[in-house]
Amino acid sequence: MNENAIRELLEGVIKNVLSQQGAPVAAAQPDTGCGLSDPIPVELSARHAHLSEADVMTLFGAPLTPARELSQPGEFLCKERVRLIGPKGVIDNVAILGPARKASQVEISKTDARSLGIDAPVRQSGDVAGSPGVILASHKGVAALQEGLIVAARHIHMTTADARRFCVADRDLVSVRLDSERPVVLEDVLVRVSDKFQLSMHIDFDEGNGSGWSSAVTGRIVGKNRSQDGLCRY
Amino acid sequence: MNENAIRELLEGVIKNVLSQQGAPVAAAQPDTGCGLSDPIPVELSARHAHLSEADVMTLFGAPLTPARELSQPGEFLCKERVRLIGPKGVIDNVAILGPARKASQVEISKTDARSLGIDAPVRQSGDVAGSPGVILASHKGVAALQEGLIVAARHIHMTTADARRFCVADRDLVSVRLDSERPVVLEDVLVRVSDKFQLSMHIDFDEGNGSGWSSAVTGRIVGKNRSQDGLCRY
Repeated sequence: MNENAIRELLEGVIKNVLSQQGAPVAAAQPDTGCGLSDPIPVELSARHAHLSEADVMTLFGAPLTPARELSQPGEFLCKERVRLIGPKGVIDNVAILGPARKASQVEISKTDARSLGIDAPVRQSGDVAGSPGVILASHKGVAALQEGLIVAARHIHMTTADARRFCVADRDLVSVRLDSERPVVLEDVLVRVSDKFQLSMHIDFDEGNGSGWSSAVTGRIVGKNRSQDGLCRY
Repeated sequence: MNENAIRELLEGVIKNVLSQQGAPVAAAQPDTGCGLSDPIPVELSARHAHLSEADVMTLFGAPLTPARELSQPGEFLCKERVRLIGPKGVIDNVAILGPARKASQVEISKTDARSLGIDAPVRQSGDVAGSPGVILASHKGVAALQEGLIVAARHIHMTTADARRFCVADRDLVSVRLDSERPVVLEDVLVRVSDKFQLSMHIDFDEGNGSGWSSAVTGRIVGKNRSQDGLCRY
């Protein structure tokens, strides 16, 4: 390797560092062979409940009724709605997503948690052990959850083909830049990989309002915070 | 410069790039001589109104009454409160900050804007031209603002000594990383420099809830998005 070649390489690296510091864009990693700069659609998750079959029966006395399909195949919005009751406030008309699950889980924002007066933790979906409960009410019944009230951690659903393209694996944590009105880099975004999924990043209303989200906003992976194999490849 | 020296330099640069990509920290810029890694206190701005003297008289029939001093010298929270009325909803008990200003300005979050049903834009304080109005009500009167309802852009108050330390100037835009429960890098944070200020970054409740803010959270400048002199120094 002669000095000129090294100088050229070095200048390229320095340019990369500088451009990345001004505005962290995925284009700064041209040599990984990853499709990192590919945009990821970003969806807002409104507050919603997943219910166990037992809680569905307590609240409605009949199975859930699908109203429309959601972006993740197999999931549907239900015609039924539920009221959340906390020590400080009540939130009405909360969406229920079907199908029924093994355990009930209610996903709200930190803003909602303040309204209810319950300090719900940020958790990955399904990780409800030790989380606070909440009272659910319908026009037919009341169910008191012992646990399951969480603020869902931001995450990206993707297929195995997407994961190959982005050079990530299931349960990696990545940083994602949103090109929104109030641009942000969200760190520790959980990657979930399954061929049942469709590529989509999910953030909650606080993250959406705080970043000035609109439906035109896309995300780009700009770094990796943790990977399954313990390596930080970029 | 011999090849070994170049190799060493190159490895240092690559290490910097890698460490920065994993977790964007200010420590990646050791050569600027800036105190970039110094922490900045982060405060949450709740919704509030600044009122003109005319609107104060319309709403309360008397000058504002200070209740307590705020972190920025000269500013105070008032005993009076005001109601915001929009086409879709009402927000009660909104704080008023004194002293009275030339023009009334109401600062809310995007979440509040949705509740009121008014599409308030993200603006720097004072930049209200063309923004929507809102109706203010007290127990004594009603004032209909023609404009002045904004979502305040995140910003940092600092003294000239702080500005020198951080290598920034008034009206620079910087990226700030919050070491919060849901860590984020907020881009386009406006720097305001005056010796009347005390070092403090102000974000709104959406940005606070979206990032899992707590009073222990600090911010660190990790990059510059725009500077007064047109240069991007880091």
